[in-house]
Amino acid sequence: MVMYAPQEVRADGLPDRVTIYEVGARDGLQNEKQVVPTEVKAQFVERLVAAGLRTVETTSFVHPAWVPQLADAEELIDRLERAPGVRYPVLVPNLKGLRRALDRGVRDVAVFASVTETFSRRNLNRSVAEALEMIAPVVDGARSAGAGVRVYVSMAFGDPWEGEVPRERVVDVAGRLMALGCTEMSLSDTIGTGTPGHVTALVADLVDSGIPLERIGVHFHDTYGQALANVLAALQAGVTTVDSSAGGLGGCNFAESATGNLATEDLVWQLHGLGIETGVDLDALVRTSVWMAGQLGRPSVSRTVQALAGTAGRQRGAA
Amino acid sequence: MVMYAPQEVRADGLPDRVTIYEVGARDGLQNEKQVVPTEVKAQFVERLVAAGLRTVETTSFVHPAWVPQLADAEELIDRLERAPGVRYPVLVPNLKGLRRALDRGVRDVAVFASVTETFSRRNLNRSVAEALEMIAPVVDGARSAGAGVRVYVSMAFGDPWEGEVPRERVVDVAGRLMALGCTEMSLSDTIGTGTPGHVTALVADLVDSGIPLERIGVHFHDTYGQALANVLAALQAGVTTVDSSAGGLGGCNFAESATGNLATEDLVWQLHGLGIETGVDLDALVRTSVWMAGQLGRPSVSRTVQALAGTAGRQRGAA
Repeated sequence: MVMYAPQEVRADGLPDRVTIYEVGARDGLQNEKQVVPTEVKAQFVERLVAAGLRTVETTSFVHPAWVPQLADAEELIDRLERAPGVRYPVLVPNLKGLRRALDRGVRDVAVFASVTETFSRRNLNRSVAEALEMIAPVVDGARSAGAGVRVYVSMAFGDPWEGEVPRERVVDVAGRLMALGCTEMSLSDTIGTGTPGHVTALVADLVDSGIPLERIGVHFHDTYGQALANVLAALQAGVTTVDSSAGGLGGCNFAESATGNLATEDLVWQLHGLGIETGVDLDALVRTSVWMAGQLGRPSVSRTVQALAGTAGRQRGAA
Repeated sequence: MVMYAPQEVRADGLPDRVTIYEVGARDGLQNEKQVVPTEVKAQFVERLVAAGLRTVETTSFVHPAWVPQLADAEELIDRLERAPGVRYPVLVPNLKGLRRALDRGVRDVAVFASVTETFSRRNLNRSVAEALEMIAPVVDGARSAGAGVRVYVSMAFGDPWEGEVPRERVVDVAGRLMALGCTEMSLSDTIGTGTPGHVTALVADLVDSGIPLERIGVHFHDTYGQALANVLAALQAGVTTVDSSAGGLGGCNFAESATGNLATEDLVWQLHGLGIETGVDLDALVRTSVWMAGQLGRPSVSRTVQALAGTAGRQRGAA
């Protein structure tokens, strides 16, 4: 016997089940320079779902000039074979994007906000307050159409220009976003500088401020190798939604040193080792990331994919 | 301001100070195919010490035919400028190695044992019981000479041939090693499959068996990206000695998929973020790993080194 799966040893105080919010198809691909064919994107999403992922962010209805890679949002949504019980949220930067998404029948959207003024101005060309004003009608419109709205609360653990980000500011901005009607937030360590004590403290502060735990997801980057330790701290704090990207695809090209989404495979290895249910078939997921790496022409950065890539083929006789 | 250091946010129940047991010069270099000049090794060790590391495993007094890279053990030890208050342990595989080490004035040694029969036979060409018999006089001889003896307890979390490793077996082998007179053990996840609940449970079992916490170190590999989360679990269990390798150098070429020592820089980022004292100057350490990467002709695998490599130079005007 060889070890193609982690040994399961449970730990006290952790959830029985975690929802993995898969961002590879959107966050992962959006910075790819070479445009990925729509058919490949559709297959990628379908394979992720076949591997057991139940929340797969699919694309962004951003203006095509901003992110040419995702200019095929409508086509991709139309082409997707949707599975029952699976959520396929899309990012909508503004009202126009929301209308395009709703027109395609999308019923889960995500919006984006920054905790820090500098990143808000650089990324959205608006102050934080102005960004909230822009988001308000998007949230309203989505909710009126019966759609759930997730908000990415970025730079929540540090900002490359401003340095340390006070937790009170995160609580303040997050509170205002939830008050607008967002149904879920993703606490995002955009530059990956956060460490576990910071996660514990920030989640506790958010809960103390009245945001229910089940509405808080976490989005960690592996820029300094901290993502999985931060996930552990978040789980210990009661968080049950964790963002990750199949194969570790992507990052954020708007922020310095912001490479390195947490790889879904590395996350699944940890969760399954802890006896936490995810619904994911790790072997099928690894084969999907190996296939996608072939499409992109470079190996996956996921340590688990690297370790298992050979074995996944060996076990099933297929890449 | 930009973030060249983690924001410090303490967490409950963690130690105030952690001893980093640096293995880069021995475990990190031993598998390098191209022989590194003794002068470079000496500089590497001296720079690690200058960066604040206080326990730096230096080399192995193994038979030169086994590990040609470390055939210069005597020369390296003679050449080293030793700093006061710093431990420079060396690996000794057998009595002959011990005598060579003691002859050079070494007063801290490490020995190696496997929990599993298969790895013991493959790596030491002996059963576990026979390996313990071989180790016994080495421990005796070292202790008689006033030297401390650390033992690496390898395959403690899984074995690539045997699969899952029962915790009782680890406790049994570790207990026998401590009974032989070892002064410290390093609980080693040689193939990197362990997850945090496993760490918590195994440390608790060892402590329950009578091994004091302060004699238990942990040695995690990042093969599946789990090393730092496992460190967090170990710290929460009260462990205060953590092994790591500057720049993430090395792994173990005797075991399948055993690449990926935990990088010291990634560990330091976490510990400093948690407000845990290490004595390490992260910037000096990063510059050391960037310099060593230049000597080896390939970039460091440490995420923190990759993120900070540019800034370390930018800050000080030197690589």
